[in-house]
Amino acid sequence: MYQFKNDYSELACEEIMQALMKYFNEQNIAYGLDKHSENAERLILEKFNSKNGKVFFLNGGTQTNTVFISYVLRPYEAVISLETGHINVHETGSVEASGHKIITVKGKNGKIYPRDIEKVILEFNNEHTVKPKMVYISNSTEIGTIYNKEELVNLKTICDKYHLYFFIDGARLGSALTSKENDVNPEILGEICDAFYVGGTKNGLLYGEALLINNPDLARDFRFHIKNRGATLAKGYGVGIQFERAFKDDLYFSLARHTNEVASYLKEEFKKLNIKMLDSPTNQIFAFFSSPIAKKIIDNFGVEVWYQENDIYCLRFVTSFNTTNKDVDELIAYLKDNI
Amino acid sequence: MYQFKNDYSELACEEIMQALMKYFNEQNIAYGLDKHSENAERLILEKFNSKNGKVFFLNGGTQTNTVFISYVLRPYEAVISLETGHINVHETGSVEASGHKIITVKGKNGKIYPRDIEKVILEFNNEHTVKPKMVYISNSTEIGTIYNKEELVNLKTICDKYHLYFFIDGARLGSALTSKENDVNPEILGEICDAFYVGGTKNGLLYGEALLINNPDLARDFRFHIKNRGATLAKGYGVGIQFERAFKDDLYFSLARHTNEVASYLKEEFKKLNIKMLDSPTNQIFAFFSSPIAKKIIDNFGVEVWYQENDIYCLRFVTSFNTTNKDVDELIAYLKDNI
Amino acid sequence: MYQFKNDYSELACEEIMQALMKYFNEQNIAYGLDKHSENAERLILEKFNSKNGKVFFLNGGTQTNTVFISYVLRPYEAVISLETGHINVHETGSVEASGHKIITVKGKNGKIYPRDIEKVILEFNNEHTVKPKMVYISNSTEIGTIYNKEELVNLKTICDKYHLYFFIDGARLGSALTSKENDVNPEILGEICDAFYVGGTKNGLLYGEALLINNPDLARDFRFHIKNRGATLAKGYGVGIQFERAFKDDLYFSLARHTNEVASYLKEEFKKLNIKMLDSPTNQIFAFFSSPIAKKIIDNFGVEVWYQENDIYCLRFVTSFNTTNKDVDELIAYLKDNI
Amino acid sequence: MYQFKNDYSELACEEIMQALMKYFNEQNIAYGLDKHSENAERLILEKFNSKNGKVFFLNGGTQTNTVFISYVLRPYEAVISLETGHINVHETGSVEASGHKIITVKGKNGKIYPRDIEKVILEFNNEHTVKPKMVYISNSTEIGTIYNKEELVNLKTICDKYHLYFFIDGARLGSALTSKENDVNPEILGEICDAFYVGGTKNGLLYGEALLINNPDLARDFRFHIKNRGATLAKGYGVGIQFERAFKDDLYFSLARHTNEVASYLKEEFKKLNIKMLDSPTNQIFAFFSSPIAKKIIDNFGVEVWYQENDIYCLRFVTSFNTTNKDVDELIAYLKDNI
Repeated sequence: MYQFKNDYSELACEEIMQALMKYFNEQNIAYGLDKHSENAERLILEKFNSKNGKVFFLNGGTQTNTVFISYVLRPYEAVISLETGHINVHETGSVEASGHKIITVKGKNGKIYPRDIEKVILEFNNEHTVKPKMVYISNSTEIGTIYNKEELVNLKTICDKYHLYFFIDGARLGSALTSKENDVNPEILGEICDAFYVGGTKNGLLYGEALLINNPDLARDFRFHIKNRGATLAKGYGVGIQFERAFKDDLYFSLARHTNEVASYLKEEFKKLNIKMLDSPTNQIFAFFSSPIAKKIIDNFGVEVWYQENDIYCLRFVTSFNTTNKDVDELIAYLKDNI
Repeated sequence: MYQFKNDYSELACEEIMQALMKYFNEQNIAYGLDKHSENAERLILEKFNSKNGKVFFLNGGTQTNTVFISYVLRPYEAVISLETGHINVHETGSVEASGHKIITVKGKNGKIYPRDIEKVILEFNNEHTVKPKMVYISNSTEIGTIYNKEELVNLKTICDKYHLYFFIDGARLGSALTSKENDVNPEILGEICDAFYVGGTKNGLLYGEALLINNPDLARDFRFHIKNRGATLAKGYGVGIQFERAFKDDLYFSLARHTNEVASYLKEEFKKLNIKMLDSPTNQIFAFFSSPIAKKIIDNFGVEVWYQENDIYCLRFVTSFNTTNKDVDELIAYLKDNI
Repeated sequence: MYQFKNDYSELACEEIMQALMKYFNEQNIAYGLDKHSENAERLILEKFNSKNGKVFFLNGGTQTNTVFISYVLRPYEAVISLETGHINVHETGSVEASGHKIITVKGKNGKIYPRDIEKVILEFNNEHTVKPKMVYISNSTEIGTIYNKEELVNLKTICDKYHLYFFIDGARLGSALTSKENDVNPEILGEICDAFYVGGTKNGLLYGEALLINNPDLARDFRFHIKNRGATLAKGYGVGIQFERAFKDDLYFSLARHTNEVASYLKEEFKKLNIKMLDSPTNQIFAFFSSPIAKKIIDNFGVEVWYQENDIYCLRFVTSFNTTNKDVDELIAYLKDNI
Repeated sequence: MYQFKNDYSELACEEIMQALMKYFNEQNIAYGLDKHSENAERLILEKFNSKNGKVFFLNGGTQTNTVFISYVLRPYEAVISLETGHINVHETGSVEASGHKIITVKGKNGKIYPRDIEKVILEFNNEHTVKPKMVYISNSTEIGTIYNKEELVNLKTICDKYHLYFFIDGARLGSALTSKENDVNPEILGEICDAFYVGGTKNGLLYGEALLINNPDLARDFRFHIKNRGATLAKGYGVGIQFERAFKDDLYFSLARHTNEVASYLKEEFKKLNIKMLDSPTNQIFAFFSSPIAKKIIDNFGVEVWYQENDIYCLRFVTSFNTTNKDVDELIAYLKDNI
């Protein structure tokens, strides 16, 4: 059976693999100083309209988050995140291991709002507490929701007010920006935050994340820091080739759009079966099942339990570049036979 | 012109690329818990005859060194390395960033000897100094030399005597073990050290290092630590597939043997031209040239200056899985025309 | 006016000062290896009936907490604390700066209960989260409450069940153990936890905390670690002399008992004035006042605002070795004149 | 017998003890925000003519070094020190534990010269090495020598040239500035470096170092950082009172002058006995003895072996505020009886 466990269970889409194949024995300068990385950087800066930005290629979300956050913050400074933020719950204390506290807020619908930040600023106000200095959000969020333009602008405004850096985890940025409900143009991302990353691993690339630092003050010695954290890729051109390909003809976005479309199809089919779901316009669908059927679904389709309350399971179904409507049909058929 | 700059200027050998291509859309369990990684682990443990070992796949030498060293050492413990050791001079303070001092020794011919360690033990003997707890060597070494079996046994003995862990950086282990001068059977590596890694990046793989921890005490929670350091690969099966292929039919060693053979050919040709060289039986050749010709070689063949004394340059020529005797011929022809 | 701000606003009690004066020019071995420190260690181990314990003298609560926690935990391990725990809110991210996440729980009445820990164990259960490995509590607590014997036994039991270390912050241990409501004999502290510290700074000493590590596995190389954290006291005998004096004739406890008695008197007088208070049997009294009078009290008696809700202030009154009933009388007189 | 082991074997001089006694039960604001600390800061800034400086009181040399260095450096930046520098050999890896590499140079007579720094700058020149960013020296040095004004000016010049911060460890600054050979006026220290500290522990104070940061950019959030490192002193006024006293009537310097004078006397007496010595104009005297007598001296006078070559021991004799010529006479008498 096709597994709806996550969007990184398959190596890479065919176009990316072919791009790598094409250059497999071409000599390139190491450490990301090659022409493919340069092309990829240019394409990304253009796409997101970053005037003074720089792009750095890293290899995975946790690494990107930690390397960037630990570069920006001074030792006594902290990052504000949702309680459910990826850095707070799924990165084995990586940010703390780099020496920094994560200040958590509750937020709503998987999103942080200015009132959450105001509260932190009031509370962390003297030298016996850490100094809040960055706001970390994910788009799409951990529960598949997306920020709209107004929400991002409001966060930017409050960050400016309190001299906080604004950083967006874009592990699933593709699915956010190609969601039907999205009103955020890629072009505003080059301005609205100090940095964000464009996730490759969860969107059809073999590996690699493109960190775009809009704020030049935060990019200066960043290559030293990447190496210092053991994150420099000797064959950096390997990521360069992939992102060059992904941004050449908007492949990156068509891959993401596909995941959303299959997810939409899945949602419609679930609705027909009267399955209760959280509201998610992207490629992660959270649906509720009672205990016996939930366990069967987990066994057969590899989905994760997001949380459980008594006998009710909230299961996460994720679609990838490789998921098809036919895979959904098989899932639905199974459900019909087993509910 | 072919660049003799290093052994990681080309993406990967064709066999590795085809293995990846073969599985590009196969669904696999993430984080290295897949069947390819399992196969690769088994093949590697067998090859090196590690009875109680575990294999962990990471992504690059600096990362592997730092993640392992920082796992093994307590905060006040230090690692002993050559002054010229990779961790000491080419990793931007990565080990120190993880909190540990590197105690440096001078050694000889790029190698550490028991007398170096004895000296450290005498000097670092109280609670006002760090506590030496690990010996780090590279094989082949930074200057292309290799340890023979007796030297490794002697190091193992002194490490046991002083309760030091023994760790071998095998970024170029392939070139060491396939050198004509080598007398170290792969099978002894499963016993003679607490851990070593089998470098993929510098031996024809797209990326990836296989860390083999022989000492089970040092492997227990190591997966937590990898993630804590931001080094867990979501698509771990990507490395698994590569090492599975590389160790299926000794491809790993035939790739390495090739680099040594081309390097041997280069050495012979250099000798014919009376070019002075350091003694290296592996794929890194260090040769001396006076200033004007050295600069031309650097410009045309991308080689690195290892060091410079007055007008004499010591240049490093590195061969890779992709270098051919024909590439050497072109270099020699150029030299003949320009010396 | 006498300031009720905290219990570390006065240098030291006279007995301690005289002990220091007595030995001001005696030559002693540095770094805590002197005879006074040895005496002090023996007296403390006896008092708390620690069979295999060791005592280490440090210089302040934050330092003691961080140095000990960072010694015990491996990089990916975390400590469980109340949300309001001192390490979580008043130490400027010191534990995180040492690389470790603090997992927070809500607790009740300033105390952690087994159910809080059970919940953490359920939630932090895989390699993508930190590994809970220690429980940190304070006695007396941040809001002046104390643990009774049964509560400590229950915590010990759950810690053993889940292989968690149990550490008690005793910055105000004296006030806890001499509280009228206390049923914890000092003798059980040598068994019931892996380590605790006996706070000097907040109980009439010039400086210094005595960390008693009951669990010998956690003491082995601890002196290296203290130095590694910059916390070794060159003139360690300075603390040794103070604790030697403090534990010679139970001075430590009579100082603490005094703070509780003055605090009791203050509570009684507050009750007579119908002032609402939190329930605290130790030397920190939390009382509620409405805005105008609260501000006057803050200005005149230096007390801290614990929290504020609308117009109501919760103010903290702390008594020290040096506070007298007469100081309380003046406060009460002021209140009578101004309420 | 009087022990010549070091200058921190006695608690404090009588004047300092009396100052503490005087204020033992005075209420003061905590954390160094009291009037005594303020006075002490003013007196110190005046003495060293620091126009924009700030003074921070810490508790010991290792702590002061590490807290300051880790505040100034970014993660990939390193500090340059002598191989024999205190931070490199006597602090149990404290600087590395804070994440930073120490780049060592050989120097001469215990001192760093511009040529040492030039060499580092040439070698550490790319993103695969740490970035040198600070020069650390001690005055007086580890072997009792002192920097003259010209040497300090030259270091300042080279630091400015390469944008390196210049930091002076003044654990024994008193003995340096009151040496007969000294030509450095205290007033130039307020300009010639970014920061230095005035050691109390080794000059007759109970504890405490006064870190004077001349460069206001390096002082901004430093109080957060001190707390973050667990180094904030709750009873900061305890150090304030001591430095207030020490700088009121140049007590600090008369204490130091005394140690130098007794050391001079010791040197003269050694000369009379034809004992070979290193050249030291301060309170640490290094003298050579052959094996049998060396061992007796160690046993009877507690001196440390600085190094040993074959049968010859280099022993360190240190004088303190409390050492008298009579103590020296007893040592000399012993030598006469036993040589």
